[in-house]
Order: sequence, then structure tokens, then C-alpha cells
Amino acid sequence: MQPIFAGFYSAKVLKYSDTIPILAFFFIYHRTYVKYLLKIRTIFGRMRNSSYICPLLLIHMIENNYKTQVIGVDIRVDKTVSALVNIRGEILAREEFATADYPNISEYVTKLADSIALLMEKSGNPDGIRSVGISAPSGNYNTGCIENSPNLPWKGIVPLAAMLRDRLGLAVAVDNNANAIAMAEHAFGAAHGMKDFVLVNLGSGMGSCIFSHGNIHQGTNGFAGEIGHTTYASGGRQCGCGKQGCLEAYTASKGVLQTAQEVLSESDTPSLMRSVQKLTVRLIIEFCNQGDQLAIEVMRRTGHALGVGLANYASLFNPEAIILSGVVSRAGKWLLEPANDAFETHVFHNMKGKVKLLNSFNEDKDLNVLGASVLAWDVKEYSLFK
Amino acid sequence: MQPIFAGFYSAKVLKYSDTIPILAFFFIYHRTYVKYLLKIRTIFGRMRNSSYICPLLLIHMIENNYKTQVIGVDIRVDKTVSALVNIRGEILAREEFATADYPNISEYVTKLADSIALLMEKSGNPDGIRSVGISAPSGNYNTGCIENSPNLPWKGIVPLAAMLRDRLGLAVAVDNNANAIAMAEHAFGAAHGMKDFVLVNLGSGMGSCIFSHGNIHQGTNGFAGEIGHTTYASGGRQCGCGKQGCLEAYTASKGVLQTAQEVLSESDTPSLMRSVQKLTVRLIIEFCNQGDQLAIEVMRRTGHALGVGLANYASLFNPEAIILSGVVSRAGKWLLEPANDAFETHVFHNMKGKVKLLNSFNEDKDLNVLGASVLAWDVKEYSLFK
Amino acid sequence: MQPIFAGFYSAKVLKYSDTIPILAFFFIYHRTYVKYLLKIRTIFGRMRNSSYICPLLLIHMIENNYKTQVIGVDIRVDKTVSALVNIRGEILAREEFATADYPNISEYVTKLADSIALLMEKSGNPDGIRSVGISAPSGNYNTGCIENSPNLPWKGIVPLAAMLRDRLGLAVAVDNNANAIAMAEHAFGAAHGMKDFVLVNLGSGMGSCIFSHGNIHQGTNGFAGEIGHTTYASGGRQCGCGKQGCLEAYTASKGVLQTAQEVLSESDTPSLMRSVQKLTVRLIIEFCNQGDQLAIEVMRRTGHALGVGLANYASLFNPEAIILSGVVSRAGKWLLEPANDAFETHVFHNMKGKVKLLNSFNEDKDLNVLGASVLAWDVKEYSLFK
Amino acid sequence: MQPIFAGFYSAKVLKYSDTIPILAFFFIYHRTYVKYLLKIRTIFGRMRNSSYICPLLLIHMIENNYKTQVIGVDIRVDKTVSALVNIRGEILAREEFATADYPNISEYVTKLADSIALLMEKSGNPDGIRSVGISAPSGNYNTGCIENSPNLPWKGIVPLAAMLRDRLGLAVAVDNNANAIAMAEHAFGAAHGMKDFVLVNLGSGMGSCIFSHGNIHQGTNGFAGEIGHTTYASGGRQCGCGKQGCLEAYTASKGVLQTAQEVLSESDTPSLMRSVQKLTVRLIIEFCNQGDQLAIEVMRRTGHALGVGLANYASLFNPEAIILSGVVSRAGKWLLEPANDAFETHVFHNMKGKVKLLNSFNEDKDLNVLGASVLAWDVKEYSLFK
Repeated sequence: MQPIFAGFYSAKVLKYSDTIPILAFFFIYHRTYVKYLLKIRTIFGRMRNSSYICPLLLIHMIENNYKTQVIGVDIRVDKTVSALVNIRGEILAREEFATADYPNISEYVTKLADSIALLMEKSGNPDGIRSVGISAPSGNYNTGCIENSPNLPWKGIVPLAAMLRDRLGLAVAVDNNANAIAMAEHAFGAAHGMKDFVLVNLGSGMGSCIFSHGNIHQGTNGFAGEIGHTTYASGGRQCGCGKQGCLEAYTASKGVLQTAQEVLSESDTPSLMRSVQKLTVRLIIEFCNQGDQLAIEVMRRTGHALGVGLANYASLFNPEAIILSGVVSRAGKWLLEPANDAFETHVFHNMKGKVKLLNSFNEDKDLNVLGASVLAWDVKEYSLFK
Repeated sequence: MQPIFAGFYSAKVLKYSDTIPILAFFFIYHRTYVKYLLKIRTIFGRMRNSSYICPLLLIHMIENNYKTQVIGVDIRVDKTVSALVNIRGEILAREEFATADYPNISEYVTKLADSIALLMEKSGNPDGIRSVGISAPSGNYNTGCIENSPNLPWKGIVPLAAMLRDRLGLAVAVDNNANAIAMAEHAFGAAHGMKDFVLVNLGSGMGSCIFSHGNIHQGTNGFAGEIGHTTYASGGRQCGCGKQGCLEAYTASKGVLQTAQEVLSESDTPSLMRSVQKLTVRLIIEFCNQGDQLAIEVMRRTGHALGVGLANYASLFNPEAIILSGVVSRAGKWLLEPANDAFETHVFHNMKGKVKLLNSFNEDKDLNVLGASVLAWDVKEYSLFK
Repeated sequence: MQPIFAGFYSAKVLKYSDTIPILAFFFIYHRTYVKYLLKIRTIFGRMRNSSYICPLLLIHMIENNYKTQVIGVDIRVDKTVSALVNIRGEILAREEFATADYPNISEYVTKLADSIALLMEKSGNPDGIRSVGISAPSGNYNTGCIENSPNLPWKGIVPLAAMLRDRLGLAVAVDNNANAIAMAEHAFGAAHGMKDFVLVNLGSGMGSCIFSHGNIHQGTNGFAGEIGHTTYASGGRQCGCGKQGCLEAYTASKGVLQTAQEVLSESDTPSLMRSVQKLTVRLIIEFCNQGDQLAIEVMRRTGHALGVGLANYASLFNPEAIILSGVVSRAGKWLLEPANDAFETHVFHNMKGKVKLLNSFNEDKDLNVLGASVLAWDVKEYSLFK
Repeated sequence: MQPIFAGFYSAKVLKYSDTIPILAFFFIYHRTYVKYLLKIRTIFGRMRNSSYICPLLLIHMIENNYKTQVIGVDIRVDKTVSALVNIRGEILAREEFATADYPNISEYVTKLADSIALLMEKSGNPDGIRSVGISAPSGNYNTGCIENSPNLPWKGIVPLAAMLRDRLGLAVAVDNNANAIAMAEHAFGAAHGMKDFVLVNLGSGMGSCIFSHGNIHQGTNGFAGEIGHTTYASGGRQCGCGKQGCLEAYTASKGVLQTAQEVLSESDTPSLMRSVQKLTVRLIIEFCNQGDQLAIEVMRRTGHALGVGLANYASLFNPEAIILSGVVSRAGKWLLEPANDAFETHVFHNMKGKVKLLNSFNEDKDLNVLGASVLAWDVKEYSLFK
């Protein structure tokens, strides 16, 4: 068995040998192993901070202790999904719980740590787990914090990476979801092998990620990629960000629904959209597939706005491809054809016909945890005991 | 004296010693030295290509043969300026000639090589010159070509770097002028020490350059930065590129003049602008400084368009600063204050108050040759004789 | 079906429609599809070079034409293995043939292209194959050539990448085998997530690869990593490279066998090594495992030399880990323990206990093709028809 | 005059206008300006940390507040030199004091801050100063600390960057002297334009710096470049680091003197070296220049050791050039010729004749402060008031 306290090896000292029997049961591999481990580690973590070195145990390092797995976490408004992912991007196990059940951030982090501990247990080799990556709305890679997320329960600046690292004794990295999805597509999807590309995520908001020279362009404060808040129509629709005419107000979920209201109010043409109680983007897409002309018109207008916005993006950035993800992007040709038309009309002439518009390659439900796992590999290894 | 044919050193062979007298005069340092050198090098270049190795001369390498100077070339529609620039960005000598006098590209390159030869002569140490950098409209760094420049006399794809390298036996790099100016400001000006910034050049056109992680973001085909051809007003003014509503049509010279026509036609308010035969941007700026209200209004509208465009740019890239160069940027506060107002209104809220708007630091006339000299250092050293 | 001639799409012209019947059979998916494809492509390639644009066919690009597979090629003295590898590093199919059967490089490239064509056929979607990566002894990434390989049948500079690209119409990259193995371990093995590490391959020669800031350090001419030809013992054993005392002469296969001769001649101690006709490294390792003291002594001396060499390496580069691959590294503890002792004694004191010595994680037979597939993703996409 | 409290600008609020008279005298530019500034900043810094925002003053930002100067600090055992350096590497003013006068680190930092304040005053525009770079023995770039320097008065880990930043309110970066010298040569000297090179400093110790892809290779813990502690002669001379046979024990000052003792004791040949009371490297070099055969022999042996060590370095790293600095390197041809011979004999054959050995280009006394100034530009700008 791999030693629990490999970090002690470097101490090469065995002072308080009387404590060994007390701790010896940790070596018996049983169900509660990981939870105890986490608690013990937390205690030791505090000790370490108080400059108290704990040379309790000395166990020989086993040769070739490879780190072959990481934990990817996808924090959403409705639920938090954690996954055990190996080097090749295979998701080996999942855990999830309702995010809203933990409005207190400290309790949330404890729950998340427990959830990860279960995955570590399932892995069969907790010491082969290298680090943790987290995809979160308003996650800032530079600071490791969730910063002023409008929709998550915790307000202000939440130092999530630091809090979780203290609980787990593992390195933790945080980034926003558009960046995580882009990492997933770069490592295991449509952008594999691309050095300069853009990913645009069309969900409840509109975010994006820029890869430049093979690396994410974070910008000087980590805020780059706010395509959703570029101005599409000066003095246009009110956006949730406080500005008017933001692209997001036309292309993200809420914008699509607002376009649907406009389309429906412009005429009396019959439409399946009139018959549902609560219209959603998914329903509009379904109605498009059923040939509903007004639904198709909604997507046509959405695609036009999207195409103009992406053309500006491409003129500035000259990407090899623009990859689309998120619920709106699932409209397929109803969105992509008008988007492509508007794109080709508005893009700088040298790039006409040269920029690929692609849908994301990986499945929606995997994109964020996959990307979070890539992020986990990017952060430097860390151990409480080193 | 540094040997002319340092490349021969590696051969370490002196076979045809009878040829030495023939060539010995090259060691006499006289006015025609460099021109002969260039011709000789061209001949040897051809020989080398025909796999004929010329072990004519063997001269001992003098210790510490430092390369301390480069040539920066600024190709404009009206004139071509070449400058001898040292490591610290000091311009030691200049040569210039009228670009339009050489409509034949081959004759142009010959004239340019002669011009550079004069600078090499002036340098006092031709072998201390490392390479050549060229700033040219529509210059493409990836290919070393001028590609379809609308205003230069040579049409299509002009392989300038390759042609000049063959003439000079020195490495030659080419880039467009926005990139060159950005390199100048990064190496010796307002952007020194910045890793992520944007330079926007407002001249007869509107170009820009993006620095990401300390390097130029060229884009997948080398076309990145086309801020001038992002859409500012859908269905708006006709742009020279064929599209409608491009930002350039509102903020570059021609756009400013068009705005002036509009402003003048809207009212009968007296204005200095009405009295001149041929209105120019410089005149409008002068009239602003004299308090002419309509001229100020022209710059206010220009600044507004600029501010909106730059806000979109910043929302996407989150730069530390946006640096402005070019004739329009010389309007100072008449342009910057309305631009700043529009910028702060339209930029993504997290970046409000965080992005510096700066004028370029170096003098206009030096910006391009300085940047071209930085480019020259970036290219790998090359010698016909290695 | 994905169109064969997707590149024609951009032409958007259908001039010679009478040629369609002639070529239509290509759309019928049959056994010889790929071979014909290759031939056709070669013809078109030549046409293209003669500035003859061939607008023979126009087929609509199918949405989301993902490139999900590449070809990895491992050229060895005895055999050439090609493999179809997907994004996640799964080897889906293999082809191999004896390298020595094709002493003429042109015939070899034809055979290799045929071999790859078979893999493309097996893939079921030839157009989903993006590019080709090749691991070859003396392969130079910068030039795409095999340069003066002492053991391969083709002498001098072999422009393999260019030759194969012309045959296949796909981008081709070449690198040496140490670099390929390092890429495999970085993408899918022991070095995943590491930014600064060293891989050392101990086979018939001793090569290595340095990763700095997450990228391979190729050096200014592409020759970096020659650990095998650093001096271990001044005036020591004659190395195949012409120098004396190279580390390789003590740690690669031939060196291990020479050490075995020395050990055997120093005493009359019985040893299993005395009983075999042709001693090999594998046999010595087996004898170590059987407890043969002289075999263990051979590996102890080898390990000592290795440890001293790696300590110098680490003192210069401060890697996170040194990863060992190749036949000699399979000696396990017989090699690693003495190597580790010598390493810790000789390394710069600040790094003591901090540099991991690890064996390669992937299986020997997969390392090179896997690494070659990673290389294939690194090269820019290329198409004859763009 | 540039406003003292530019950071307040962003507040755009002027609440406590009655405080203006109290603080107004800061605008009078007098001798004590900067010292008061520093104190005020410290107070405000504390306020800021207690989430107390101080909207005391509102002063209009002057357009184009460029940062055009930095402070470079060179900490040596004997003295500490601070210099005001502009963007182009011109040293505009210097201050120095004896390092050993301040054995208490806190007092040292206060003295250093005072010294820098004097430079800021001399600059005429304290707000144009961007940041501070420090070259120090055992300086670690990653941590900003001086770590266990054997020769400086302060023991253990000294968090110099953090301490000085708190005093000055400016960003501070720290690196070791070999890295600083390499940065100086890269920015303003022999390595300008090189992407992959090595700098080796031969002073009282032997350190080095590796540039890979244009950036310093720091290694995973920031310890890369320890060429001095690679093994030159197994079981050889005792090195100060505790190991035996380190290259430094043969090539740095102490090693050269030990070689001199050996040479003198081997024969009775007369030598100028016998007549001096305290032999130094400078004297040996002088005696070489006077033709003293034993002194020349000392340098020949030193050069041989150096050449072997550099050959190993080059075989691993394939640099474009190796640049030498430090007192031993001033021996010129007496060192370089034997070094070059040994280098060419021992380097991997593909690199023979391809690696330049160069002396540093800048003057010895400027190298460290110049490099420290380059380092200062590399660190991100920081302000107490942002």
C-alpha cells in the first residue's frame, strides 16, 4: 500500500513512537479511510501553520508513485458535480449534490470536501490523486476566488481554492466555466491541436475564452473574453449587467426568449410557441425541428446577432476556429446557417471562408468537469507534508 | 578589422591561396566597400545554392565580434525611411527616398539595398549589423510578404523579405505598421513592462496590435487586430474594404473628414473649417485648439465612436492599457475626453476605471523605424556563409 | 459521407462538370478508396504547384467535420510501426514492416505512405485524420529531416517530412525518439502536469529531452539533450561518437555489456553471465533478479555512472522529475538504488531529496508511436486543397 | 507636477475638503518630499488593509502619466548599489552604502528605502518610477527572498521583496546575480536578440543562467543553473558546498588561487606570483599579460576545466552562445584559448564550431544594476492606492 503520510518521509525522524499504535489503524484500508485522512490532514495543516512539525510516522516511499488521476468539479447554480478523471480524460466516477443546500460557504466547502473524499475512496488509490480543478461562474484563475457571482448563493469574494486546499491538502485551481469548457475542447475535443481559437458558450449568459499561442489569454486582471458584454446594438435591450445593447441580451437564453416574445407579438401567425406555458430555449429548438416558422425566425434573428458578434471577434483575433457550446448552440443549423451568413458578411475580407464555426465536440454534461480536470493538471502539485 | 567573410572561418581550410591577392582589396576600407560586398555576397549566395562551397579565404575570427546594430525600415506610400539603430534604440543614421519612384519591385529592392548599404557604410562596422526589420502596410510576419496592399505601387503578394535577404545576405523580417509601432512602444515607450496591451493606430486607416503574455498575437493567419473593420454601425457608412459601418469609416482620417462634412451641413454655425480649401485632420485639430465649436464637435463624435470600439476591444481582451498613435490621436483631449466617456460607459463593468488610455510615447516619425529595429532583433541571425 | 475533396469547397466553382462521372466512383466507399485518394492527391499536388487550380468537384462541407485522429510513426532500425491514434491516446490500429527492406529512401517513403493509407482505410473516416508525426533516430524537429543517422539505411540529410507530405497531402512532423518519448510521457504518463522535467532514454544509445516552461527545449539548432555525450570520465572509454569517456559509454546497452566484461575479468567468481553465448542487457537484468552477484555489480556500476550524470543534469536544470525509459531502465531497483545514491551524493544540495526519479509510465512498445501522435497534433494542419 | 495621490483619482470623490490645507504642503516640492511620501504611503497602506478607504484628496490625473524609470539594486557582500535607470538602460543616478553596516535586516531595508528615496528625489518625477528590481546572491525569483546566503550578514530566509514593497509602495522583484547579469546582456548586450543562450559568471563563486525560448529557465524550484556544482573531477577538490570535485573549485576565484598554489609547488621556476604577499586573480591576470609562464599555466588549467564544463553544458543545452562574466573571465585569451580548445574537444560533434564563447558586453560595474532594472520592468506594476 502506498503510505498515507508520504510527506513524512522527508523528515526521516521518528520521535513520538508511542503515537504509532493510535494511528496505526489508518493502514487498514476500510470505508472511512479517506474521511479520517481528511480530518487528520486538516489538523496537521493547522499544526504546520503554527510552525509545529509533526514527525509522527516514517514510512518508506514506494517506487514510482505515479499521480494518474485528478478531481474535476463543476459548480452550477443548481448542482455541484465532482468527478474522478484520469490522464486520458476518462470520467471514472461522479458525485453530485444540490448547491443551494449550502448557502453558508464554509459548510459548502465541507460538503464539497466530503464529496471529493468519496471519490478518492472510490479511486482505490487516494495517493494517486494529484490535484483539484474547479469550474465556477465568475471563477478567477489569477486569484483562485469566485468573485461577485450574481447567481451563486455566496456573495462577494469567495477564496474557494484556498479554503478547499486547506481541507484536502491538495492543490486546487479555479477558473470560470467558459475557460474550463475551452480547456476541455482543447485537450479532448474540437480544438485539439489548435493554438489560436475562441470558444463561445451560450447558456444563461454568454461567455468566451481565447487561446493565444496555445495558452489561455486571461487578460491583465483575468477578465478577458467578455464577448457577451460587447455592444451589439447601441441603446438597445437592457442587459443584466446594467448596460444597454449587450450582445448577450440577444444571444443567451434570456435574449432568445425576449426575441421570441417580439416575434410572437409582431404577427398573429400560428406557432407552437404560443401553446406552451413556460417557453424555453430547448422548446424553441424542438419547434424549429418540427418546422415551426416563427421558432425558426427566432433562431434566425439570434443567429444573425451571433454572426455579427463573432465576425467582430474574428476580425480582432483571427482564430483558426470558433467553437460554440451551451444550450443555445444546440439549435444546430437553425442557428448556424444565419450565423454563418452574418459572419461572412461582416468579417474582415482576408478571413472570409477561413474561420471554422464548430459545435463543441464533447457532451454538454461532461464539458465542465473535463475542463476542470485539465485545469487540475495545470496547477503545481502541493502537499501539506512537503 | 572584422573579416568580411566570417562564414569561411568554419571551413578552416585555405585551398586556393592564389585567389587572395585578387580579393585582398576588400580589406582596404574605402567608400565602395559595402556595395562591392553586397555584390560579392550575391554571387557567393548563388554559388552556395549550387552546392559549390567557396573556400576562398580564411580569416581569423576576432574575439567577441558583437552584433550591436540593426537596420529598421519604414515603408510608406510617400517615402521609404531606413535607419541604423543600436541595441538601446538610438537612431544613429537615416536614409530615405521616394517610394513611388520605384514602381518596379525589383528596382525598388535594389534601391532599398543600396540605401541600407549606405547606412552600413556609415556605421563604421558593417559586420556589427545583425539583421533588417521592415514595417510595411499589409506586411505579413508569417510569410515575410507584403500582401495585397491597396496603396503601395506593387500589387499582389510581394516576397520582400526573401528578395532583400538575397541582396544583403542578412536576415530580414517584415510586419505591418501597427505591429511595428506596438513593438516600438513595448521596447522603448508607453508599453514597456506591459505583458497584455493593445496599440491602436489611427492614420489613413485604423489598425491595431494585441500583445498577449508579452508576445504579439498574430492570429492563425497573421491577420489579427483588424479593429478598423469591426462593425460600429450596422448598415452605416461605406468603408473602403467593401463592408458597411466599419469603425475605421468613423475614426480614421477619411472618416473624420466625412464627419466634418456632416457636421458642417447640419447647421449654418460659422466655423474655421468652412474657410479652408482642403480640410485635413491636422487642421481640424488646430481649429479645436483655437476653440472652434464645430471642429470640437467633429472630434467629439470621432471620440465617441472610438470609445465604443475600444470598449468592445477591452471587454474581449482586458488589456492593461490601450495606446493610441497616428495623426488622429494627436487631437489630445478633444478626442480623448469623449472617447474616455464612451469607453467607461460601454466597457464591461469589472474593467471600468482599470484600462489606461495613453498616447504613444515615442515621436511619430521614429515609431515605425524603431519598431522595425525591434523586429530585426527578433529574427534569427542569418549568414550566407554559414 | 464526408467529401473527399473538401478543399474544393472554398473554390465554390463547378466548371468542368463533365468530369464528375469520371471521378464519381470515388464516392463509393470501397477497399481501394484510400490508395486512389493518395494517388489523386499526388497528381493534384503537382497541378497545384504549377499554379493550375483544379475546380473539378464541388461538394458541400458537412457541418462539424472534426479531426479526431492522427498517425504516429515509429522508425527503428529493425522495423517501422505506424499507428492510428485518437485524441485521447488510444491506439486503434497498427501497421508495421521491416525498415531494412527499403534501403532506397524513395521506395521507403512509398511503402510508408501505403502503410498509412491502410490505417486511414481502417479508420473508417480518412478525412478525420489530421496529420502525421514521426519519431526517428536523429530526427530534427526544426528541419523535418533525419540528419546523418548512423544506423538507419539512408545516409546524409533525408527530408522525410517534405517527402511524406507530398505523398499524403497531410502535414508531417519529425522529431528524435527521446523527444517523442518525452511527449508521450508528458501527454499520457508520468510527466503529465509537469512543466520542467527531463526524460532520459537508455537504449542502444543514451538520449534525453528537456521540458522547460511546458515546452521542449530544442536548443538553437535542435540538438539539445545530448546527455549521452557529456563527459563522465575524462580520458575514459572510447565512445562511438569519437570522443572518450562519454556517459553513454557507461550507461547505454553497449556500455553495460563492456562493464560486464570488466566485472567478469576482475575475478573468478561464478556467474550466470559466464554461461551464455551472447550476453544482453535483458539477460543481465534477469540474472540480477535471480540474485547473481556479478550481474548485480554490473548494474551497480551502471547505476553509479547514471546517478552522477543525472546529478549534473539536475544541478543545471532543476527538473521536477527525471523519467527513465529504454531497455537499461528496466533493471528496476538494481539500477535505481545505486543511481539514487550517487544522485543524492552529487546533486546540488538545495535539490537533494526534491527530484523524483521515475520509470516511464507507458509501455515500451507504445511510447514512440504515442509520442509521435502527440507530435502530429502539434504541427499545423495542412491540406493540398487549401 | 504629477499628483502625489494619483490612486485617489479613481475614487472621484472629494469628501473631506477641510483636510486639503493640512496636506497641501506636499505639493511644494522640497528636499524631504519623498521621505514624507514614503511615510504617508505606509500609513495609508495600513488604512487600506483595514478596509478604510481614504478619499482625502482628489487631484486630476495628468494626461499620459508615463512610467519611464525604474530602480535597479545590486546587493553585494561589500556594498549595496542602487541606480535610477530609464527604459533604454541609461543609468541616470547612483547611490551606494556599505552592506555590512546593517547586520539587522530591518535596519538594512530602511537604509535601502532611504537610498531609493534619494534616487526618486533626484529623478525629478517620483511618480514616473515604476518598480524596483534587486540582484542579490541567493536571491530567489519565485519567492522574492534571499535564501540562506552564505556570505551576506542576514541568515535564513529573508523576505526582501515583501519588506521593501511595504516600505516603498512599489512592486519589488528579486533574483540572483547570475540571472540579473544574463538579463542585462539579453536586454543591452552580447545576448540581445538571442533566444537560447547561457551566461556563466565566474566570480567568488560560479553561477549561471539559462535562457530557453527567450525566457529564463528558472527550474521547478528556482534553482536552475548550478553549473558550479556539477562534478568536474570525481573525488577531487573539496568545494565550499560540501561536495568534492565541483567545477567551481577549479574555475572560480578560490579555485584559481588553489591552482596557483599547486603550480607554484610543482617546480622552482621563478614567477611573479611568488613575490606578492596576497595573490589575487587580478594579479595573476596581470602577470599573464606580462608573460609570466607559471601564471599562464594557471590560466591554462583553469581554462581547460572551464572548457570541459562548458562543453557538457552545451551538449545538454545547445545554446547559440555562452557568455562569460566575472573577474576570472577578464583573463581574456589566457583563459579563452585553452577553454575553447577543451570545449571543442569535449562538445557533442554536431555543435563543434557552432557555439560562440563571448565575454559580457556591458561593463562589470553596471551589469548587476542594469540586470536588476530589467527585472524591475518584468514585475507587474503595484500601487498601494489601487
